[in-house]
Amino acid sequence: MSYLNALFNPRTIAVVGVSENSAKLGSVIFNNIINSGFLGKAFPVNPKYKELYGYKAYKSILDIRENLDLVVIVIPGDVVEGIIKECVKKKVKSVIIISAGFKEIGKKGEELENRIKLIVHKSELKLLGPNCLGVINPLNKLNASFAALNATPGNVAFASQSGALCTMILDLAAEKNLGFANFVSLGNKADINELELLEYWEKNKNVKVIGLYLEEIENGDMFYRLLERSKKPIIILAPGKSEEAKKAINSHTGSLASSASTINTVTKQAGAISVDTIEELFNDMMALSWSHLPKGNKVAILTNAGGPGVLATDLVIENGLELSELSDKSKKILEKFLPKETSIKNPIDVLGTALAASYKLPLEVLIKDENVDGIIVIVTPQLITQIEETAKIIVNASAISNKPIFTAFLGGKYAQTGLQRLYDNKLPGFKYLGDAIKTMSHLYQYTLSRTKDRYDNLKRIRSLKGKYINKIKPYLSKIEVALPTKLVDKMAKEANIDLPNQQVVYDEDDCLSFIYKYGFPVVLKAEAQEIVHKTEFKGLYLHINDEKSLLNKFNKLIKNIQKHTIRKEIGCLIQEQINEGEEIIIGLHRDGNSKVYENNMPGFGHMLLFGKGGIFTELYKDISTRLIPINKEEIKKMISETKIYQILLGYRGSKNLGIDKLIDTIYSLQELALKYPEISSLDINPAFLTKDRCIAVDIKAFVKE
Amino acid sequence: MSYLNALFNPRTIAVVGVSENSAKLGSVIFNNIINSGFLGKAFPVNPKYKELYGYKAYKSILDIRENLDLVVIVIPGDVVEGIIKECVKKKVKSVIIISAGFKEIGKKGEELENRIKLIVHKSELKLLGPNCLGVINPLNKLNASFAALNATPGNVAFASQSGALCTMILDLAAEKNLGFANFVSLGNKADINELELLEYWEKNKNVKVIGLYLEEIENGDMFYRLLERSKKPIIILAPGKSEEAKKAINSHTGSLASSASTINTVTKQAGAISVDTIEELFNDMMALSWSHLPKGNKVAILTNAGGPGVLATDLVIENGLELSELSDKSKKILEKFLPKETSIKNPIDVLGTALAASYKLPLEVLIKDENVDGIIVIVTPQLITQIEETAKIIVNASAISNKPIFTAFLGGKYAQTGLQRLYDNKLPGFKYLGDAIKTMSHLYQYTLSRTKDRYDNLKRIRSLKGKYINKIKPYLSKIEVALPTKLVDKMAKEANIDLPNQQVVYDEDDCLSFIYKYGFPVVLKAEAQEIVHKTEFKGLYLHINDEKSLLNKFNKLIKNIQKHTIRKEIGCLIQEQINEGEEIIIGLHRDGNSKVYENNMPGFGHMLLFGKGGIFTELYKDISTRLIPINKEEIKKMISETKIYQILLGYRGSKNLGIDKLIDTIYSLQELALKYPEISSLDINPAFLTKDRCIAVDIKAFVKE
Repeated sequence: MSYLNALFNPRTIAVVGVSENSAKLGSVIFNNIINSGFLGKAFPVNPKYKELYGYKAYKSILDIRENLDLVVIVIPGDVVEGIIKECVKKKVKSVIIISAGFKEIGKKGEELENRIKLIVHKSELKLLGPNCLGVINPLNKLNASFAALNATPGNVAFASQSGALCTMILDLAAEKNLGFANFVSLGNKADINELELLEYWEKNKNVKVIGLYLEEIENGDMFYRLLERSKKPIIILAPGKSEEAKKAINSHTGSLASSASTINTVTKQAGAISVDTIEELFNDMMALSWSHLPKGNKVAILTNAGGPGVLATDLVIENGLELSELSDKSKKILEKFLPKETSIKNPIDVLGTALAASYKLPLEVLIKDENVDGIIVIVTPQLITQIEETAKIIVNASAISNKPIFTAFLGGKYAQTGLQRLYDNKLPGFKYLGDAIKTMSHLYQYTLSRTKDRYDNLKRIRSLKGKYINKIKPYLSKIEVALPTKLVDKMAKEANIDLPNQQVVYDEDDCLSFIYKYGFPVVLKAEAQEIVHKTEFKGLYLHINDEKSLLNKFNKLIKNIQKHTIRKEIGCLIQEQINEGEEIIIGLHRDGNSKVYENNMPGFGHMLLFGKGGIFTELYKDISTRLIPINKEEIKKMISETKIYQILLGYRGSKNLGIDKLIDTIYSLQELALKYPEISSLDINPAFLTKDRCIAVDIKAFVKE
Repeated sequence: MSYLNALFNPRTIAVVGVSENSAKLGSVIFNNIINSGFLGKAFPVNPKYKELYGYKAYKSILDIRENLDLVVIVIPGDVVEGIIKECVKKKVKSVIIISAGFKEIGKKGEELENRIKLIVHKSELKLLGPNCLGVINPLNKLNASFAALNATPGNVAFASQSGALCTMILDLAAEKNLGFANFVSLGNKADINELELLEYWEKNKNVKVIGLYLEEIENGDMFYRLLERSKKPIIILAPGKSEEAKKAINSHTGSLASSASTINTVTKQAGAISVDTIEELFNDMMALSWSHLPKGNKVAILTNAGGPGVLATDLVIENGLELSELSDKSKKILEKFLPKETSIKNPIDVLGTALAASYKLPLEVLIKDENVDGIIVIVTPQLITQIEETAKIIVNASAISNKPIFTAFLGGKYAQTGLQRLYDNKLPGFKYLGDAIKTMSHLYQYTLSRTKDRYDNLKRIRSLKGKYINKIKPYLSKIEVALPTKLVDKMAKEANIDLPNQQVVYDEDDCLSFIYKYGFPVVLKAEAQEIVHKTEFKGLYLHINDEKSLLNKFNKLIKNIQKHTIRKEIGCLIQEQINEGEEIIIGLHRDGNSKVYENNMPGFGHMLLFGKGGIFTELYKDISTRLIPINKEEIKKMISETKIYQILLGYRGSKNLGIDKLIDTIYSLQELALKYPEISSLDINPAFLTKDRCIAVDIKAFVKE
C-alpha cells in the first residue's frame, strides 16, 4: 500500500484549528469532511472548546486515543511547527498544512518551511502543502479542503500548484459534470509533489487521466521518466512563456522556475500533452475522461449549416488535422439519404432544415467508415433545430462508437440545453468550434507520441568524464564565463566534431606559417572571451585572399581587441574560409546547475537545439529542441521538425546534404554535455552542412557552477 | 431618405405565403411581425384564405389598396418570379425573398435568380435575398425574419451571408444582452449586398459598430473605399484560409470567392478589424458596442489569484500588448492598501482572500493612472470571493472610466453569475482569459489603424497606359501565360526597375560579345516560358568566370532546353553575376480578372507582396502584402512588417541597405500593374538589395484575361 494511501483514504482525521465561527477555514474544512459522507472518524482540535459541531473537541492531537491517518492544520503559520512535532510524536501518517505564511512570504517564511521540511524528512510523516486548499477524494467521500465546491466521482486525477486553478477547475467541472478520482492542491510542495503523485496515480486503477498545473518542476530527470513511462495520458499546463510571465511567477512563488518552453519541450518529448490555457487543460481532461483516442488525423465534419462547416474546415487544417475522404460505400448511402441540394462531400451538410433524425444515419455511416478517425458534429440553433433531441441522437451514436465524437453546439442560451444533455451523459461538448477541433488535435498528437519508438534503454551516462575536466574547473563560478577558444577546440576534437583548419595566432609569423600550411582564403576572428556577437564588434574579417590584406587585417584586429581587454597576450583566430554548405546552428543549453545530473537536483539538464543558423536564427526562430539524452532516430525527428530541413533534404532539385553527418555531430554534442555538465551553454553558430561534412565554423562555450 | 429605409422602417408589409399552419415559414414570419410590436399595417397574402391570424387575407398583393413598403415572399422558388413582377407593377419599394431554390442549387436556380435580378435592376424595387432569414430592426420593433430568436435594441449593425451565423449571433446576444440597431440575413445577395448596407449604416446615427460575415465580396474597389472612409469600427469574419475551406465555400455558395487572405489583407489595410472565429466576431462587437477604445497597448492586470495572473501575462505578450509600468503615485497608494504579501507589480494581486471591496481602490487607481491604457480584471471563484458584489464594484468603476475594462470571471457555474451582472449593465465580460485579452488587442489594433495617415487622395490611375500593351495582347487567354523575357525586360525598363546587365543570346558569338562588353562573372539562365522554377530544371548556371566554361555551359543549356520545347529559335539569358546584397522577393498578384479596374467588376485588383527571397520565401513565409495603390509611406510600413526588415536596417552592426531604393522599386511595380492590368502575376525573385541599388535579378511575369 502506498504511503500516500493515508492521505487519500484516511480512516481517522483530526483538524487542528476548528472553531465556533463556521466561516473560518478550519471550520469550513471540518464541516466539509463531516458533511461529504466521510465514513471514518473525524476529530476537531482546539483547546478552547469541549465540543464543536456535535463532535467532542480535543485540546491537542496527543489527547486523541486513536491512531491518526491524517491531520489537517489550519492555524497561523508561526505556530504550525509545534503541531508538526506532535504529529511525529504521535506517529501520524500524513498531514496537510493549509496555513499560509511560508516560502511565499519571503525569507522568514522560507526558514520556517525549511525547518518543518527537515522534521518531516527525518520522520515517516507525509506532508501536503503548506499554503494549499487541501485534498479531495470523491471515490472515498473525502473532502478535506476549503474549496468552494466539492468534486464528484470520476476517473480524472488533478493536481495544481495554484489554489485558484483548483477552484476554477472545480467550478468548470460542476458545470460540465466532470468527475475526479483525486483532486489535490499542491501549495508550496514542501514534501509531497507532482512526482510522488504521478507514481501513485500510475498504479491507481481508478485513474484514467491526469491533469497538472505546474509553475516549477521538482526534479527534471524523474519528471521526464514518469511522463515517459506513463500509460495514462498526462496533460500539463505550465505558464511562463514570456519573460514578463517568468517575472510574475517569481514574485508569486518566490522560486526560479524552469522556463515554460523547457517544460513544454520535455512534456511533448516524453509523450505527454502540453497545453497553453485553462480551457485546453479542462477540455483535454474531459475528452480523455469520457471519449476515445483518434487512430489517425482524418476528421469528418457533420453540420446543419454551411458557414460553420467552412470555418471548421479552416480550423481542422490549422490544427494539423485533415478532412477524411469518405469511402465509396459511405458516399452511396449518404447520397440516398441526404437532401438533393447537399453535395456528398466532407463537411457533410444536413442543411438548416435538419431535424434531429437527420443526424442519425450520417453519424452511423461515419462511425463505420474506416477512412474516418474522428467526428466533429456541429449543431447551430436554427428555426426548427431540435437541440435536445439532436443531443439524444448523438448520445445514442456515441454509445456504439469507438471513435471520438466531439460536438459543438454553437450559440448561447439555446446551445446550452444541448450541451447539458451531453454532459449529463458524460460526452464531450463544446461551445466554440475551435475548442472541439483543438481538443481532437491534442488527442491525435497524443496518439502519435505514444506510437513512436520509446528509448527507455538510453541512460544518462553520468560516469563519462571529459579529458579536460580539470582545465575547465578554474573558469567555474556563479556567473557564466566563456571558455577560451583553444580549450573549446580541444574539447570539440575530443568529441569528434568536424572543425575547419584553424589556429590561434599571436603575431605576423604565426599568420604566415598558417598560410604556408593551409593556403587562402582565410577568416580572421577575435577570440571568444571578450566578444560574444562578433558582427557588432569589428572582430571578424571574411574572404581574406592575400598576404598583404591578411597582415593588415591581423594588425587592425589586434589593435581593436586591445581596446577591450587588459590581457597582455592577445591573439586571434585564423581559420580556413568555408564557402559552401547550408548555415545552421547547433546548441546546448543547461536547465539547472552543474550538478543537475546528481540525484534529486532541480532542473532538467541540457537541452539540445538545432535550427537555421547565422543572422536568421533569431529572426525566424526556426529551431527545434530536445532534452538529452536522445538516440539518433530522435535526433533525426528533431531536425525534421524545422523548416530548414526541407533545404537539407534538397530543395527544388538542389542536392541533399549530409544529414547523417549532422546527426553524428548533434550526437557528439550531447556526449560532450554528459562529459562536461559544467557547460552551461554551447553554440555552434554557424556550422556549415555540405554533402559530406558538418563543419563547426564558430563554437562558443560557457560554463557556470 | 435612403432607398433602404423602406426595408428597415416599413409602414406597410405584405407577407406572401402565410397559411393556417403556424409552423410554416410564412406564418412564422407573419406572426413574428405582428407579435413584435410592429406599429404599421401587416397584410397576409394567400388566395386560399379569407382570414389569417385575425387579419384579413388577400389573394394577391395587387388586391391590397395601400402602397406597400415591404413585401416578404415565402413561397416555393419556382413561383417567385411572378410575385416579383406584381411587386414592380404595384411599385412596391422593397422585397425580401426568403425562399430557397436559386443560385445555391445549381444552374437552373442561377438562371431563375438572374431573371429576377434583371427585373429588379430595371425597376425601383430593392431586393434582399433570396435564400435568407429576413431582416430585424429592433429600434423600430420590426422582426421580418424567421430567426428563432428576436434581437433587442442596441447600436450594433450586423449582416451575414450565412443564416446559421445569424441565429448563432442572436443566441449569443440573447445570453449576453447585446442589442442591435439592424440585423440582416444577406442570403444570395441578388441585389442588396454588404456595400449598400455599409453606405446606409455609415449615415445611420443609431449604428455605432458594424459586424459582417462574408464568404465573398461584391466589388473589391468599393468595399475597400467604404471600409477605409468609415468612421465606425467594422469587424469582418471571412472564412476560407485553407484550400479545403475554399472548396467548401464553393460547394456551399456556388461562387468563386476571393481568398480569405486577400480579404484579411484588404480589411486590415483599410483600417477595419479582421477576425478568425465566431467568438472573436461577437466579442469584438460586444466590446465596441459597450466599452471604450484603448489609447495605447499598455495593459494593467488586476487579479485575485497568482496563477491566472501569470497566464494572463503570457497572453498579453502573445497578443502584442504590453504590461503597464504603474506610475509612482499609483504604486504608493497601492502599497498602503494592498496586503503585505503582495508585491506592487503588474499583475496586481489582491490575493485569494480578497472581498469585493478589495477591487475598488485598485480599480480607481488604474483608471486614473496615465500609464494604463486598458484594464484586465480577473476574478477566480475562491472560498470567500464575492462574485456578484465584485461585479457590482466593476460596474461602478466602469461608469467613471474612459478606458476599456474587460473582466474575466474564470470558472463555470459560479463565474456565470458575475458575468450575468456585467451583461445586465452592458459591460464586456469573458469566461476565457484569452478572449478578454484578444479583444483588447483587436481594439488596440483598430486604434492604431485609425491614427495612421490616410491616403484618400491616391486614386487608381486607370488612365495610365503601358507602351507595350499591344505586345502583351497576343498572350492573353483564359489560362495564365508567361511573357517572354525580352518583353518583360522592356516593361521593367519602362517602369525604371533596376536590372542587371543582361541579354538574350542565341549562339556562341552572342555570348562572347556580351563578355567583351560587360566582363565576368556571369550567370546563364534558361528563358522564362518553358521553365518556371529554374532550380528544379537544370536551367541555371552561376559563377561563370571564363570563356571556356561559358561556352561549355551555354551549349549544355541549349541542349537541355531543346528537350523541353518545340520552338526552333532557342536562346538563353546571360546576365552579370550579382554577388552582394540581401536576397528579397517583390511580387504582384491579381485578384479578379484583367478588367478588375473597370466599374462593378468583382475582385480587388493587384496585391503587392514583399518578403525574404530565394529558397526561403516559401519556407518561412516572411512576407507582407498590400492592395494597390498605396503611397510610399504605406510601402515602408509594408516592408517593416516583415522580419527581414531588421536585416535591411542593418543587423548587429552590418550596414543598412537601400530601403529607399526598395520603396521606389515597389512603387514602380504598382505603376506597372496599373499600366498593365493584364498582368495576373509578376515576381521579382530574387531581387538583391545593396546599399544603393535594388537589382531585379529574375523577373517572371504572367498574363491572363
